[in-house]
Amino acid sequence: IGAANNLLAAMLDNHIFQGNALQIDSRRIVWKRAVDMNDRQLRYVTDGLGGRVNGVPREDGFDITVASEVMAVLCLSKDIDDLKARLARIIVAYTRDERPITAGDLKAQGAMAALLKDALKPNLVQTLEHTPALIHGGPFANIAHGCNSVTATRMALKLGDYIITEAGFGADLGAEKFLDIKCRMSGLRPSAVVIVATVRALKHHGGVAKADLGNEDLTALEAGLPNLLQHVENITKGFGLPAVVAINRFPTDTEAELQLIEEKCKALGVNVALSEVWAKGGEGAVKLAEEVVRLCEEPSNLQFCYEENDPIEEKLRKIVQKIYRGIDVELTPAAKKQAAQFEAMGFGGLPI
Amino acid sequence: IGAANNLLAAMLDNHIFQGNALQIDSRRIVWKRAVDMNDRQLRYVTDGLGGRVNGVPREDGFDITVASEVMAVLCLSKDIDDLKARLARIIVAYTRDERPITAGDLKAQGAMAALLKDALKPNLVQTLEHTPALIHGGPFANIAHGCNSVTATRMALKLGDYIITEAGFGADLGAEKFLDIKCRMSGLRPSAVVIVATVRALKHHGGVAKADLGNEDLTALEAGLPNLLQHVENITKGFGLPAVVAINRFPTDTEAELQLIEEKCKALGVNVALSEVWAKGGEGAVKLAEEVVRLCEEPSNLQFCYEENDPIEEKLRKIVQKIYRGIDVELTPAAKKQAAQFEAMGFGGLPI
Amino acid sequence: IGAANNLLAAMLDNHIFQGNALQIDSRRIVWKRAVDMNDRQLRYVTDGLGGRVNGVPREDGFDITVASEVMAVLCLSKDIDDLKARLARIIVAYTRDERPITAGDLKAQGAMAALLKDALKPNLVQTLEHTPALIHGGPFANIAHGCNSVTATRMALKLGDYIITEAGFGADLGAEKFLDIKCRMSGLRPSAVVIVATVRALKHHGGVAKADLGNEDLTALEAGLPNLLQHVENITKGFGLPAVVAINRFPTDTEAELQLIEEKCKALGVNVALSEVWAKGGEGAVKLAEEVVRLCEEPSNLQFCYEENDPIEEKLRKIVQKIYRGIDVELTPAAKKQAAQFEAMGFGGLPI
Amino acid sequence: IGAANNLLAAMLDNHIFQGNALQIDSRRIVWKRAVDMNDRQLRYVTDGLGGRVNGVPREDGFDITVASEVMAVLCLSKDIDDLKARLARIIVAYTRDERPITAGDLKAQGAMAALLKDALKPNLVQTLEHTPALIHGGPFANIAHGCNSVTATRMALKLGDYIITEAGFGADLGAEKFLDIKCRMSGLRPSAVVIVATVRALKHHGGVAKADLGNEDLTALEAGLPNLLQHVENITKGFGLPAVVAINRFPTDTEAELQLIEEKCKALGVNVALSEVWAKGGEGAVKLAEEVVRLCEEPSNLQFCYEENDPIEEKLRKIVQKIYRGIDVELTPAAKKQAAQFEAMGFGGLPI
Repeated sequence: IGAANNLLAAMLDNHIFQGNALQIDSRRIVWKRAVDMNDRQLRYVTDGLGGRVNGVPREDGFDITVASEVMAVLCLSKDIDDLKARLARIIVAYTRDERPITAGDLKAQGAMAALLKDALKPNLVQTLEHTPALIHGGPFANIAHGCNSVTATRMALKLGDYIITEAGFGADLGAEKFLDIKCRMSGLRPSAVVIVATVRALKHHGGVAKADLGNEDLTALEAGLPNLLQHVENITKGFGLPAVVAINRFPTDTEAELQLIEEKCKALGVNVALSEVWAKGGEGAVKLAEEVVRLCEEPSNLQFCYEENDPIEEKLRKIVQKIYRGIDVELTPAAKKQAAQFEAMGFGGLPI
Repeated sequence: IGAANNLLAAMLDNHIFQGNALQIDSRRIVWKRAVDMNDRQLRYVTDGLGGRVNGVPREDGFDITVASEVMAVLCLSKDIDDLKARLARIIVAYTRDERPITAGDLKAQGAMAALLKDALKPNLVQTLEHTPALIHGGPFANIAHGCNSVTATRMALKLGDYIITEAGFGADLGAEKFLDIKCRMSGLRPSAVVIVATVRALKHHGGVAKADLGNEDLTALEAGLPNLLQHVENITKGFGLPAVVAINRFPTDTEAELQLIEEKCKALGVNVALSEVWAKGGEGAVKLAEEVVRLCEEPSNLQFCYEENDPIEEKLRKIVQKIYRGIDVELTPAAKKQAAQFEAMGFGGLPI
Repeated sequence: IGAANNLLAAMLDNHIFQGNALQIDSRRIVWKRAVDMNDRQLRYVTDGLGGRVNGVPREDGFDITVASEVMAVLCLSKDIDDLKARLARIIVAYTRDERPITAGDLKAQGAMAALLKDALKPNLVQTLEHTPALIHGGPFANIAHGCNSVTATRMALKLGDYIITEAGFGADLGAEKFLDIKCRMSGLRPSAVVIVATVRALKHHGGVAKADLGNEDLTALEAGLPNLLQHVENITKGFGLPAVVAINRFPTDTEAELQLIEEKCKALGVNVALSEVWAKGGEGAVKLAEEVVRLCEEPSNLQFCYEENDPIEEKLRKIVQKIYRGIDVELTPAAKKQAAQFEAMGFGGLPI
Repeated sequence: IGAANNLLAAMLDNHIFQGNALQIDSRRIVWKRAVDMNDRQLRYVTDGLGGRVNGVPREDGFDITVASEVMAVLCLSKDIDDLKARLARIIVAYTRDERPITAGDLKAQGAMAALLKDALKPNLVQTLEHTPALIHGGPFANIAHGCNSVTATRMALKLGDYIITEAGFGADLGAEKFLDIKCRMSGLRPSAVVIVATVRALKHHGGVAKADLGNEDLTALEAGLPNLLQHVENITKGFGLPAVVAINRFPTDTEAELQLIEEKCKALGVNVALSEVWAKGGEGAVKLAEEVVRLCEEPSNLQFCYEENDPIEEKLRKIVQKIYRGIDVELTPAAKKQAAQFEAMGFGGLPI
């Protein structure tokens, strides 16, 4: 990933060095190099120094490798040709007259894809109980779609009966991106959703200090529950998918607490299943698995949060209102201008 | 390798950022970051820009990863403890009053060794005929010792009867560094040496244009031969090791040409063996192998080119006179000063 | 001015170069070099490059010479000793532990004062009618006190019977700074104030387009008058000084328009005098001069807008409310923090 | 001077910022900004930082104002039109295809000449005895022609009967440049030359330590004399001009020493005159003046050291051989290349 990212940067600078036929404005380069650690010293640099034979001076900076757009592109690609096509569309800079320059303009996609050839193949590993798992790709949900690669999911669907995809960073951020971006772009449609929670976290949301989380506290639990219930509603009513709440059981959870959660979820038409995997291994998830199998038989009807052809501001508004229950979205003038530019460049129809 | 190299650089800059307790002079940092490609734009940079929270401004630059000193250190290390000890001795900068600062001063060796833990293990691969080969480490001979790791050679010696080490960049550069540095530091002692040559290259040295190398030309061959014979003498008389010349046979080589080489080598007491591996596989190297086996039974008595406690200038003089047959070595004032500094820092006894 | 400004910067960098005994944080230098033109290329630079013998790398930038703090310091100084004392108090940087470093810490005030020795002397010029005028110093009112030097005013008071000081950038900005800063610090007390206005400008404030300013328009004039009247009130009620409004007469001004202004000013107890200097020379200002002389006989009682020992935020509030008639002042968190730092450093008692 | 120098630099950078119609290669800009002190921190900088609105990043540096080429241009200009024409020919940068860019290409000569309008006028001052002197221009002889302006000399010739021009940095460097550059370009032809020497300096050349220069030492004086005699010969035989040696008398000079100098100079056909100006004022130079007046009546026939159309290397050779009595000149490959480039650009015919 890092090598492909940096190859593109080097090809970009080399293009400028060789005469800059594309008229790239070296002050409007948006593609940064990447390093595989958080190196404060490299955040802002001036590079291309050393006189005439050593590049062209410009202000530059380094990102962390995992945050590279190449990671997101890799995970959304169907195959090597799709990867090349997606790489070619990456915008790396602008000209003085605001025209975008892509990796394809630099003819960098082939060399980048060659470096990514092996990275495109999912990694098969096994759990402690020897069940297979595919690990492939790791884009951050805060800057990309936050779950594993389309290729890995497709391969798994060929190989197994039931496939689980982990979508991290909360059921709001991770699930929304998994459904609105990865599922929309790939045509994948999940049959059911497992929402994971713990009694301790819910009591914490309800105001209990970390040290006291081991004590039964139904009032705090009730105060923390709306958080979970909203996630549940987002999935069932918002996205139209059957769901089950999986409680990762801790020894300190009391029956009364578990019962309270169950009641409240039932009221929304959703079952709760205890997951005791940590204590009992696969054995401890049998009931959860049975509920998931049951849900998969039920009809599911994925509805996206926003439409592809909504304007950018409208997409943001729908996410804010439907997922985060905000009142409205208000863009700063700079953000408004950028949204307009993206739409003018024909990117209005992309998921966000 | 690259990650360990850059971790050290980041720890160095972070030390300065955190208050610079070691009083490092940021203009006398000699440790560069590395990238795994030759990126012109990064050769000379100013980094640590972006104001007070983003590092401390200084002039910097990037090397290619394979040229990193970490590569040489890894290849010369016996085990993880030796690796740590060697890493700790790397000089990364100087203070305003000329005191050297090491990776050990920054307590970086542990974290670096952790990143290098897996890289320390030799890679076992196999040839087309399924004979085993260990590939491990690749320092350039022009800046380091130019052959594979001590660990790999030791492991191979445990596993096989006869072990071949490839020492690249010419019998002068590669062999000298293999013997004077790797063998000296590790205690390894080779039994015999194979010097590889081709008829075509010798004719080329004798003045034949590339296009005409396919035609028999005994005059040119004779003119080019002293080059080979000097390499042979360096090994046999200089280093005191039995040697065989292996001719990588090409279809255009004529009998008369091969015979001429054989005669001249014989005069120095060295046999010639044809290697037809390219055409016939392992079969084509049987005679060469038999000669190597025979040489290994003969007594060998490795003599280094220079003594460990020779002054730096004397070591350079001996290499120039014995290996390259130069008349003398003459250091520029700056080089003389640097040699004196190295000796003052206690590095006079190191191989060069 | 520029040379003294840049000498201080060079002494600062030289101090860091020579070992930085004062522990200056090179990322917290607040003193910039100056050039006597607006040179875009120099706004943000990295200097001190070129390796160990050429300074210490840091981020830097250039201001325009007239905006230099040295200009303001020069204008507020009583004599060469006061100049030195004021220069010595200039804050140029901070240490890592937030301690301010002054020009005095760098012992730069003497050399700077030597460069400014001649600049400290007011320039005597003459008008077209051979009346004397002193021109000395030109700090911008938006960043400094906006009027000429204390020395020039004192010298003029020694030489003439009536002295006029021009305070630019509007009666709000220029007059406020002249009174609250220059008069407060120097002990100078003006006897009367001349507020200059034009009929055209007042109609423009009242909404008339530039092209139509030549036509009589009493409605627009009335709409624009409150602007002038507020300036008048600021001077008479706010600062407690007698005032006259001088109308710079244009040929297109009608009698009706002039009369309207006169009425409104009268209602505030202030006379209006026509200034026809442009058309008739000194002759054209006789009536204005007579009114000024009359006012100078009246008692005047300068009241500052704020007290010296008001907290910084309170000073800002009083300026906003009394001069600009704003409702209140609200500081951003960063501004609040800076105000607190200034007060902690003992600068709370300075005029603003 | 500094302002005109920096205006040109700012116009150059602004041209690049505005779209770079002339295709200037920002890594081949040879025109630097200037500051009026030796500021180590500004020797090497990266400027044009701060993103898209603040210039174009490049490596840059500052010279000292007196070393600016503008100073030399000013001193060689006949009048304001000639000044403009000369300014317009200044080369400030090269394009990627090696084409030179001049100040004229940037249309900067007019604005620069406007800034230099007053500087073009010679300054008339007076000596302690009230004789007039014109001071105008101060280019360093090591980088320019090293004497005052053509305008000042011409003006003086209009006003006085005998005009003295001081040409600093030794009779070799200063006189050669005065004659070969200033006189050649302006058509000025000196009538006679005064070579200034001291007994103390000659003894110093002859090996006497500074502390002992007050003692008579004829041996050392004789050993130091060839230095002076060679200067004398350069003027009389080399340049074909009548000359007198003026000895700046010190109280410690003995009669025997003065006599020795006189004898040796006489042998070359040159008189010696004591200058006791330091002790006696104008009175002390009467004899010297009389000798100068006498020489001015003699025929003089200025011969330049080299011809205008000699190739650059030949010009250097003639200076080295005739003035410095070197055996030959040997150019480094880089210098040879640069000389060829200058000749290709049509600058071969310029004095050096």
